[in-house]
This record gives sequence, C-alpha cells and structure tokens, in this order.
Amino acid sequence: MDTQELYRRGLAVRKQMFGADAVDKRMGALGEYGAPLQHMINAYAYGDVWSRPGLERKIRSLVVIGMNAAINRAAEFKVHMNGALNNGCTPDEIREVCLLVALYAGIPAANDAHRLALEVFKERGIDV
Amino acid sequence: MDTQELYRRGLAVRKQMFGADAVDKRMGALGEYGAPLQHMINAYAYGDVWSRPGLERKIRSLVVIGMNAAINRAAEFKVHMNGALNNGCTPDEIREVCLLVALYAGIPAANDAHRLALEVFKERGIDV
Amino acid sequence: MDTQELYRRGLAVRKQMFGADAVDKRMGALGEYGAPLQHMINAYAYGDVWSRPGLERKIRSLVVIGMNAAINRAAEFKVHMNGALNNGCTPDEIREVCLLVALYAGIPAANDAHRLALEVFKERGIDV
Amino acid sequence: MDTQELYRRGLAVRKQMFGADAVDKRMGALGEYGAPLQHMINAYAYGDVWSRPGLERKIRSLVVIGMNAAINRAAEFKVHMNGALNNGCTPDEIREVCLLVALYAGIPAANDAHRLALEVFKERGIDV
Amino acid sequence: MDTQELYRRGLAVRKQMFGADAVDKRMGALGEYGAPLQHMINAYAYGDVWSRPGLERKIRSLVVIGMNAAINRAAEFKVHMNGALNNGCTPDEIREVCLLVALYAGIPAANDAHRLALEVFKERGIDV
Amino acid sequence: MDTQELYRRGLAVRKQMFGADAVDKRMGALGEYGAPLQHMINAYAYGDVWSRPGLERKIRSLVVIGMNAAINRAAEFKVHMNGALNNGCTPDEIREVCLLVALYAGIPAANDAHRLALEVFKERGIDV
Repeated sequence: MDTQELYRRGLAVRKQMFGADAVDKRMGALGEYGAPLQHMINAYAYGDVWSRPGLERKIRSLVVIGMNAAINRAAEFKVHMNGALNNGCTPDEIREVCLLVALYAGIPAANDAHRLALEVFKERGIDV
Repeated sequence: MDTQELYRRGLAVRKQMFGADAVDKRMGALGEYGAPLQHMINAYAYGDVWSRPGLERKIRSLVVIGMNAAINRAAEFKVHMNGALNNGCTPDEIREVCLLVALYAGIPAANDAHRLALEVFKERGIDV
Repeated sequence: MDTQELYRRGLAVRKQMFGADAVDKRMGALGEYGAPLQHMINAYAYGDVWSRPGLERKIRSLVVIGMNAAINRAAEFKVHMNGALNNGCTPDEIREVCLLVALYAGIPAANDAHRLALEVFKERGIDV
Repeated sequence: MDTQELYRRGLAVRKQMFGADAVDKRMGALGEYGAPLQHMINAYAYGDVWSRPGLERKIRSLVVIGMNAAINRAAEFKVHMNGALNNGCTPDEIREVCLLVALYAGIPAANDAHRLALEVFKERGIDV
Repeated sequence: MDTQELYRRGLAVRKQMFGADAVDKRMGALGEYGAPLQHMINAYAYGDVWSRPGLERKIRSLVVIGMNAAINRAAEFKVHMNGALNNGCTPDEIREVCLLVALYAGIPAANDAHRLALEVFKERGIDV
Repeated sequence: MDTQELYRRGLAVRKQMFGADAVDKRMGALGEYGAPLQHMINAYAYGDVWSRPGLERKIRSLVVIGMNAAINRAAEFKVHMNGALNNGCTPDEIREVCLLVALYAGIPAANDAHRLALEVFKERGIDV
C-alpha cells in the first residue's frame, strides 16, 4: 500500500475516534514543524496498527489508557480517554483500568489517572 | 468483609488464573519474609481489584500485559502472559497489545515484549 | 480484621499525617467515582502498610518522598512533603533526600524535587 | 583541581550555554536551600562532565534533549532546548531527535517533545 | 512511496548499520509472530526516520544510545552500541554519552550503560 | 577542597559501606574506560553527598533502596542492599521499604525488590 493511502486511512480512523475538529486542532498545533510526526501518527499508528483487525477498538483503548497512565503521559492519557469513550468504553470500565494502574504502576499513577479521567468526564458533561 | 476472607477469595482467583502449582511456587519463593507482600497480592490485588465485576478477566489481562511491557517489568509480564492465556486471550490478541506497546512506549519495549511472549509460548508448547 | 475497620484505622492515620481538612478535600475531589481507589488508599495503604510497626513514620516519609521524586509524580510528592513535615522531618533532612535523588535518578529529577519542596515550604510559611 | 575552581569553570560554561541572566534566575529560584544542588550542577555537571573534551557541545545537547524527552522531564527539556540552540543546533536537527524519541520512547513522548520545542521556538521568536 | 519499498529501503539501512547476519538473526528470532513488528521496524523506523537526511547517522546513534540507557532497555542499548560503532562512533565518544547518562538519568543508569558498553567492546575485540 | 581529596574521602566512605574487596572488584570491572565514572561516584556521590552530615547513613540507605526498586535498577539495588545491611539496617526495616515500593511504584516493583533482597540475604547467609 502507498504510504499516502496509509496516511488517509489512518487519518479517517483517527477522526472517527476523536472527531474531525479535535484532530484538526491537534495537527494544527504542531504545524509544519510537526508534519513528519503527524505522518508517523496518521500513517503508522492509525493507518497500520490501529487499523489491524485482531482486537476491537474498545479493548485497544482500554489498553492504551492503562499504558499511558502507567508511563505518566497526562496529555496522551486525556486524548485517549476521549477516544475510549467514543469507542464505546464506559466510565465504569475505565475506572477498572485505573484501579489496575494502582496495582501495577502504583497509587500515585492511579491518583493522577482518576483526576485526569474526571477532568475529561467534566469536559464532556458526563455525570459519574 | 474480613481480610482473611478477602485473602482466601483472592488466592482462589489467583489459582484459577495461574494454576495452583505456579501460585504455590511463587508464594514459596518469597517465604515468610514475603508473607506481608503475598497478603497484599492475594487479599488486595486479587481478592479486591481482580474480583470486581466491572470488566472481564480477559480484558484485564490484556491491559495488565500492556502496562507491564510499558514499565519494563519482565518477570511480571511473563506471569501475566500465562494468566492472559489461561483467561482466554489468544496469541494474536496478545500480539496486538505488543504492537500497541511499540506505539506508546517505544520499539525497545515492544521488542522485549515480543521476545518474552515467545518464551512463554515455547514454555507452554504453543505454536505461533 | 474487617476491611471496614482497616479503612477506619487507615483514615485515622491519614488524617494524623495530612490533617482532616486536606484528606477530606482530596477524597472529595475524586468523589463517588474514586471511592474504590480511596478504599484502597485508606484501608490498604494507610490501614495496613503505613500502620505496620517496623519502621517509624518519619523514615517512611523520607523514603516515599525519594521514590515519588524518582518516578516523577509531582502531585504525590507534594502530598508527602506535607506528610513528611507533619511526621517530624526537617527541611534539611528533606534536602538530603533530594540530593540523593540527583545521584540515583538524575539532576532533572532533583531539580523538580527542589522546586516542589520550596513550593510546599512557601505554602506553609516555612522559611528555609 | 579545587572544587571551587571546578564550580567557577562550570558556571562559566553554563552561562555560555544558557546566558548569564537565565542562569542567575535559575540559581536564584532555588535560593540558599538549593545551594548544594547548584554546587553539584555547576561543579560536577558543567565543571566536569560538560567540560570534557571528547564530544562537541552541540552533539551533547542533542543527546541530552533526547534523554530528557524520553524520561519525561519537561522543565529540563526546555532548559536544554535553549542550550541546544545556543550551542548551534538547528530546529531541523532538534526535530530529528524528537522523531527518534517517537521510535525509542513512544509517540506520547514525541508529542510532548514537539509541543515543548515549539514553545521554546515561540519564546525565542524562531519561525519554524 | 509504497510501504514495501519503504520496507526494503529500511532493511538495507539496517543491514548497513548492523550487518546482514545480525539483522537476519534478530528477525528470525521473532519469526512469523513478530513479522508485523519487524515491518514497523524496517519500514517505519529505518525506512522512514533513520533514512531522513537532517542528521548524520553517527549523531543519531549517540542520541539513541543515550535514550536507551536512560529508559533502561539493555537489549536495545547493546544493539545500538554495535550500530554506533559501525556508524563511526568511537568508544571515547560513547563514553561521553554514558557520562551524560549519569547526570540526567542517574548513576545506576550510567553504571549499567558502562557495563553493557564494555560487554560489546569485548564481544567485538575492541581494546579500551 | 581539592577533588582528589574529595575522591579519597569518598572512596573511604564507600569502602566502609561495602567493604574494600567489593569496591575494588566493582572499580576493576569498569577498568580504565570507567575511570571518569568512578571519579564521579567516589568524589561526588560518596565524597560529597554521602559525606554530608544532615542525615544518618542508615536512613540514606533505606531511601536509596526504595528509589532503586522504584526505578527498576536491579544491580544498584543489590549493591545498596549490602550497603544498607552494613549501615545497620535490619531485614525487617528493609522489608518495610519494599512494602512501600508496592504502594508507590506498584506490585511488580515490590516483587522484584523482594526477590533481590532475598538473594542478598542468601549470599550473606542471613536467615530471614
């Protein structure tokens, strides 16, 4: 497959998951300087890995939330909180992941994850 | 609930997931010195968090594998590879998680995860 | 021991260490959604581990500050800075821990730890 | 060499790299409490390691930027972004390092690095 | 560009850097199960990022060594030690990177990096 | 103070803590190539930070063990297990630190710490 096609496929997946406006805003924030990274994200991350058939998107989202909480990447955690909700994860399922974070990456990581999750619920008007 | 009951419930979950022999071996390796940690693992990790109803065990396993790969804990990753397989995860689903590790925690983490996964498949006689 | 008793014992320890108001505020911030995590923190972290007799609280605080600085958890570091001061640690002892952070986790970690420690001293009106 | 001489040599290197005002500001922010850490930074980090002849400063800066992006130290990353530019690194070379961060430490680390790099370019009026 | 062409280009770069035998061995070790990861490594890591013109390979190697030391990935560190030497880095330049690791990621990371570097020098018969 | 004097003072502290044979062996393992790192360790880590009066060595050891467990540095953890025992820490005190590791850095980190601690006890013939 041509990498431009991979890019377009990935960009479409990304917009399904996060909404076109959010993706445009994120891509715009990095501008021309960030174009090579956006290519990696669109073509390789979403056009390839996220487009693979072997695991449903909802489960991928839960795994990705858990990993980002564990490795302390707050901005990416919030992005994928939104993706998880759009992919059909419930706040309760997300909470179970955040409790697993406490076990495997420690309570400070779980505290941060809970706080960030609640920020996203509030931004989206979700009552938990 | 009494903490001893929590402990028994968790130990039962743990033996379902990893097999009684593997759990006995792991608990024995830490001995009397490790008894307080084993109490935390049995009562709090498995008796509480893993016993919660809100997310099926198979998905929990995939999240936990992803987190342990991301935070570089090889021994725990291998333990939960076995748990994942016993909980019904397929090698293909596990591979999808390991590819997500490449995106979110980097290629070195994904290389280590693949290598360890293949070790577990080999130990269990699983042909991939 | 019943887990509710463990919870009450832990909550009492926590309030001794951080003050009732600070604990109420932190528990309130996570709300109902965070209740399972608060249960883990109160019952397991403070009711069990922090209530164990084998090491005085002041030393526990210094260890916990060092760990949180090393693993880059700023919010938890500040919480335990307050706990450390309430447990009798002096600013000078805390500084020694922050200098050990430079050796074992690197200068960026030590810089962040110093900056956060100074924020807490300022919030509490401690002149250093 | 006397450690005070090492300190003076390092402080001079540091001021060459970051500008005297920026160094004064950073040292002042940590005050008397941070004097032992500043001694380590000036004498040992800049007076010794950064003063060694075996690798040009520009390359050191690129390595240090990559490491700080990988280990998630935003404040230090921004400090060394300024050092890198003063040491002669171009925005394009810095971008190549940030793309390597994506491969080896994951896309969230690369996203954070790009965002912080763009902040520094903007603060310095560099058009990219 | 077609992704298969990207793959071939990356595989050629990789073989230049590590030798055809070493690459064949590494790819063989992960087998069919690891083919999607190898695709990511060959096409995206080496065919895209490492093939970009903006920074010479030798400097890329030093950055990658520093990052892998900092994030504690021993196997990848050794792979890229070999790549660094093949890309023209000298043992002395590599040592300067390992000393920067001490400053930014701590002495334990630098100790591990030195030990692994010496293992590679010994494997290759390099006298340091 | 002259850095050579700092070096000698630190080397003496280090030999008190780990034994002259262990230090000679560790320094010999890194050889001439590792001499600059050994200088940093002897002069700056032990001659400066560890020689400061503000915190007793035994407490420093417990902090350092906790940090190394949290940041996943097994070799350094074992070195400082020996230092801790020589500095007067008891196996029970060390266990309390390892249980705090479970809370703040997660159960996988605590499992690794317990396993490594038991290895050191066995190597030294300490019955726990």
